[in-house]
Amino acid sequence: MSEVEILEKIKSELNIIEETLKTYLDSQHPFINQVSEYIIFSGGKRIRPLLTVLCAKLFLNENLNNRYLETIYRTSILFEYLHAATLLHDDVVDSAEFRRGRKAARNLWGNQATILVGDYLYAKALRLASLLENPRVMDVITQTTLLMSEGEILQLLNLDNTTLTEAEYEEVIYRKTAVLISACCEVGAILGEAKPNECLLLKNFGKYLGLAFQIIDDLLDYLSEETGKDLGKDFKEGKITLPVIYALQLADTEEKNTLLYLLKTPEVEKKDFETAKKIIEKNQGFIKSKEKAEQYINLAKDCLKELPNNFYKDLLLFISDYLLKRKK
Amino acid sequence: MSEVEILEKIKSELNIIEETLKTYLDSQHPFINQVSEYIIFSGGKRIRPLLTVLCAKLFLNENLNNRYLETIYRTSILFEYLHAATLLHDDVVDSAEFRRGRKAARNLWGNQATILVGDYLYAKALRLASLLENPRVMDVITQTTLLMSEGEILQLLNLDNTTLTEAEYEEVIYRKTAVLISACCEVGAILGEAKPNECLLLKNFGKYLGLAFQIIDDLLDYLSEETGKDLGKDFKEGKITLPVIYALQLADTEEKNTLLYLLKTPEVEKKDFETAKKIIEKNQGFIKSKEKAEQYINLAKDCLKELPNNFYKDLLLFISDYLLKRKK
Repeated sequence: MSEVEILEKIKSELNIIEETLKTYLDSQHPFINQVSEYIIFSGGKRIRPLLTVLCAKLFLNENLNNRYLETIYRTSILFEYLHAATLLHDDVVDSAEFRRGRKAARNLWGNQATILVGDYLYAKALRLASLLENPRVMDVITQTTLLMSEGEILQLLNLDNTTLTEAEYEEVIYRKTAVLISACCEVGAILGEAKPNECLLLKNFGKYLGLAFQIIDDLLDYLSEETGKDLGKDFKEGKITLPVIYALQLADTEEKNTLLYLLKTPEVEKKDFETAKKIIEKNQGFIKSKEKAEQYINLAKDCLKELPNNFYKDLLLFISDYLLKRKK
Repeated sequence: MSEVEILEKIKSELNIIEETLKTYLDSQHPFINQVSEYIIFSGGKRIRPLLTVLCAKLFLNENLNNRYLETIYRTSILFEYLHAATLLHDDVVDSAEFRRGRKAARNLWGNQATILVGDYLYAKALRLASLLENPRVMDVITQTTLLMSEGEILQLLNLDNTTLTEAEYEEVIYRKTAVLISACCEVGAILGEAKPNECLLLKNFGKYLGLAFQIIDDLLDYLSEETGKDLGKDFKEGKITLPVIYALQLADTEEKNTLLYLLKTPEVEKKDFETAKKIIEKNQGFIKSKEKAEQYINLAKDCLKELPNNFYKDLLLFISDYLLKRKK
């Protein structure tokens, strides 16, 4: 399978997902669609619905009937709605000004509407899930949303915890990101009518992928070209992420104090960000985070070994590598 | 059936519901339970779970096995969690200071935690629903939450609409209150394995009951003994409710202007509230609202006519009358 073919296939899947996302944003009230569209069509990578579709197709015959195909796409997008719902509430909770380089929804329509449209998208996601009439899927999704919502609260309570351990960090990113990506893959497998052990393998695949995804996200907050122009969001908010945790393990007392001080200072400047980055770099915070993400990607790929060898497996492997290499 | 027996039975059902509510607030994180308990155990009437239980028992043999009984109670409380979730988000959206005579949760733990615990209770409710593994119940509940969340947004958009018609008001209270109470009754009927037409009758029973319930609530905001000590919340917030809509229909221009002016003034005093009440009273706003609520209660009771005649029907009729007569 050539990279060109793989990219072609991913592009065509993403096009269908994009169309499906539009089709189901069908509130009778223009305002609700307007705010929903603003957050849904704001340049997300669609990694979640894509994984659901690919995990389903991994087990299915190419000659699927159209109706079942539609069901798969319709179900896949519920994960994007769920994700968007959490972004809206996160932005209110964090008083965020921007999201993906644009004004945050709350900056345009206020906190009130943003909270309520978040609730709407959440309800919409659960509604799409219930259309399947499949108790197993509902079980996965309701367990996922419960874990996620507890995780959001734990993250809020941890906000000022500068002694966050690696294990605590993992618990946070597990609930914040990995649980949902894991559910995308598991529900895909259920839709593909995979056997129980295969569903479990894909559930774990998604979990490891999600952990790696969030570690890379947290790394890019310091190192991406975009943050090159500005300060990292996590740094500005004083959020302790893996690069900082690793750096604090090796840093001497002076470096440690400087790093924590800069993280906790409300008004930081570009030069403070550069100082923090130097301390993290010198104390292996970036390199060790990258290694950790690599380990998780390898664990994810291992989960695929016993699964059917076909085009869709190649796509899942490709995406795993892509998530590790991405620059934004 | 004597009133004493009826009250005894209601009290014993409410006790079991109260216990069940406690049992299932079982997050591993004390903070989540603390905030959840604060809103859940703040003097709610438990009308929603009570209706689910009674509507189920209307169709069931008295010698139910314990496991199925537990399932009914477990399912009934999900409506209280859902309701509590909306109260938490409402309080943030309305910047409410108080709720049921106590400080609002947001006043104790801040908006951030309040939004997220609202999300948690919502997720918890859906989780309890999914434990039933019953696609019909999931269908009712996800449709309900979707309608409710749209309704919340419509209410927000209508906030400054002083030309709200009776039909628009009904749409608001239908989504705000009646949809959920209707779902309580319908899910009860499904748990009672009622026939499809019986489920529909109870769905409608709940709808009419819910409409009446909210009209009485809006009436009590002006007339209850509690608001006798203070100003009504709706009046303070400038919310247009049925008594105002009716009064505006009959009021002369001067009364109309005064009433709208007082409703829209940010800092109102006790004497302004009394003036508004006099205008509403004089223009039949209260009496006509009460009549409207009565009409809905009668429609609700009509829905019960073709259903089994037993003790539980007596209880449902009693509750219908109680909701109309309640003073707080």
